[in-house]
Amino acid sequence: MPHPTPAPRERFSQFYDLTTRWADNDIYGHANNVVYYAWFDSVVNRFLIEHGGMQPGRDPVVGYVVASSCDYFSPVSYPDELRLGLRIDRLGSKSVTWEIGVFTAAAAESCATGRFTHAFVDRATGRSAQIPPKIRAALEGLQR
Amino acid sequence: MPHPTPAPRERFSQFYDLTTRWADNDIYGHANNVVYYAWFDSVVNRFLIEHGGMQPGRDPVVGYVVASSCDYFSPVSYPDELRLGLRIDRLGSKSVTWEIGVFTAAAAESCATGRFTHAFVDRATGRSAQIPPKIRAALEGLQR
Amino acid sequence: MPHPTPAPRERFSQFYDLTTRWADNDIYGHANNVVYYAWFDSVVNRFLIEHGGMQPGRDPVVGYVVASSCDYFSPVSYPDELRLGLRIDRLGSKSVTWEIGVFTAAAAESCATGRFTHAFVDRATGRSAQIPPKIRAALEGLQR
Amino acid sequence: MPHPTPAPRERFSQFYDLTTRWADNDIYGHANNVVYYAWFDSVVNRFLIEHGGMQPGRDPVVGYVVASSCDYFSPVSYPDELRLGLRIDRLGSKSVTWEIGVFTAAAAESCATGRFTHAFVDRATGRSAQIPPKIRAALEGLQR
Repeated sequence: MPHPTPAPRERFSQFYDLTTRWADNDIYGHANNVVYYAWFDSVVNRFLIEHGGMQPGRDPVVGYVVASSCDYFSPVSYPDELRLGLRIDRLGSKSVTWEIGVFTAAAAESCATGRFTHAFVDRATGRSAQIPPKIRAALEGLQR
Repeated sequence: MPHPTPAPRERFSQFYDLTTRWADNDIYGHANNVVYYAWFDSVVNRFLIEHGGMQPGRDPVVGYVVASSCDYFSPVSYPDELRLGLRIDRLGSKSVTWEIGVFTAAAAESCATGRFTHAFVDRATGRSAQIPPKIRAALEGLQR
Repeated sequence: MPHPTPAPRERFSQFYDLTTRWADNDIYGHANNVVYYAWFDSVVNRFLIEHGGMQPGRDPVVGYVVASSCDYFSPVSYPDELRLGLRIDRLGSKSVTWEIGVFTAAAAESCATGRFTHAFVDRATGRSAQIPPKIRAALEGLQR
Repeated sequence: MPHPTPAPRERFSQFYDLTTRWADNDIYGHANNVVYYAWFDSVVNRFLIEHGGMQPGRDPVVGYVVASSCDYFSPVSYPDELRLGLRIDRLGSKSVTWEIGVFTAAAAESCATGRFTHAFVDRATGRSAQIPPKIRAALEGLQR
C-alpha cells in the first residue's frame, strides 16, 4: 500500500469555504480527528442539495455512508478558515465514492484528505437502489 | 418574567458569518438546540482571539462559562448561511455576559437569542480573577 | 434574581447513567459548556421514548425546544461517569419544562443544573398542540 | 481489496459500554457516520488513561491520529446501548493501529468496524517519538 501523501488543489473540481468552530479543537488545541468527517458530510451534502436537488427527509432514495476514511497530514485549528475541495473518486451505478481535500488559506497541499462512499438505498424497502437521475447528472458534471 | 422576543439586528455591534453543518440538523430536519451553543462559543472566542489577544491553552487567566441560556424563536436548518450578532449584555470586573443573536440571511429579527457568562479564573490557582487588561479593552470597545 | 446554587440528589425523581466522551473535553480539559445540552437532550428524550411511547420521526405531535439554560457549578471531565437526575419543573397543557441535574459518582450536589422547555407542535400544520395523552401520563408520573 | 465484513465479538479482547445520545442520530434516524469516530476516540483514550497512565494535557509525548477509517454494516440508533470491542491491529515502535468493533446488545457481529492509527509525537519538539514505556506495556497486554 503506498504511503498516503497530501493532495494538490488542482486535484479537486469544486470548492467550499468552511468556518471552524471552537468545539472542533480538542485538548491539544487542534481540530479533533472526528470533526473532519463532519466537514466532509457538510460539503458533500451541500453539493447534493445545490446541484443534485437532494431533499433530505423527503427523497425516497437516499445515500447511506457505508465506508469512510481520512489521512491527516498537518493539523488545523479553530479559528482557521478552511477551503474544502471535492471530487468524485469512483462512480458506480448504485454508489459513489467522494474524495475531499482540506486546505488552509495559504496551503498548496491538503492538510487532510478524506474519502467516503455513499450507497444508495430505497428508504421504504431498505433495498439497494440506482443513483437517482438528477443526482447522477450532478455527479457526472463534477467528474468533468 | 417578560416573554422573550426576537431581537433586531441593530441591537448587535459585531457580526460574524457562520456556515451550518449537516450534523447540526437533527431528526426533525432543523438545527438541534444544542448546536446553537457551539455557534455562540465560536463567535465569542473568535472575538476574544482577534480583538482581545486571547491565546487558548497559553493564557494564565481564562474565562470559564458559568451560565448559558437560549430562546429559540424560529428554526434554522443546514445548509443555511447564518450571521451571528454579538454584544455585551453586562460587564463586571471579573465576568462578562455576552448576548448573541442568530440571523438568517433575509431575517430582520433573530431566530434565536442566547446569552452566556464568562467568569475569569486564574488557571494555576483556580481562583476568581480580574478580566485581563487587553480583553477588557476589547470588551469596552464592543460596548461602544 | 437569586444566585443559582447546586441541587441535591433528592430533588430529582429519575436518574440515568451517562458515559462522557473524549470529544466532550475542550482545550481546558473540562467538558465543554455545549455538551451539557447534548446530555440533557439524551436523558429527556430517553425518558419520553421509554415512558411516553415517543417515536421520533413518526409522531405527528412533537416537542420542540423553545428555551434552554444551564448553570455550571464545578467542572466535570472525560472519562468521568455521570448520573443525570431528571424532574419536571413546570407542566402546562402544551409545554413542559424539564430540570436536569448533572452529578459525578461521589457528589451529593449537582455539578451543573439545566432546564429546557419543550413546546408541543403538530408537525403537519406547524401549530401549537396539546401534549399527547401518553406523554402527559408519563410526565404526571414523573411529577409524583 | 477484499470486501469488508462484520467482525465477531471473539476478535476483540477488551470491551466498553457506551450510551448513545440523541444528537448521534441524524435526519434519517440513525447514528450519523461521524459519531462512530467520537465513540472510537472515547474507548481508545479510556483504555490509554486506565491502563497506560495517559494524562491528557500533561504528557510530553502524545498520540496524534494520522489515519482513520470505518466500515458500516448495519445502522444503530439512539437510544441503543452499545458495546465497543477493542484490539490492537498493528503495533510499531512509534505508532499503534487500533481496531474497534461496534456491537448492539444482541448482535454476534459488529455493526461497524473502525481503525485508527496513533503516531506518537513529542509535543515540545513536534518530532516523532517512541511509544512511552507505560503505554507500550498496556498495548502489549491488550495484544495477549
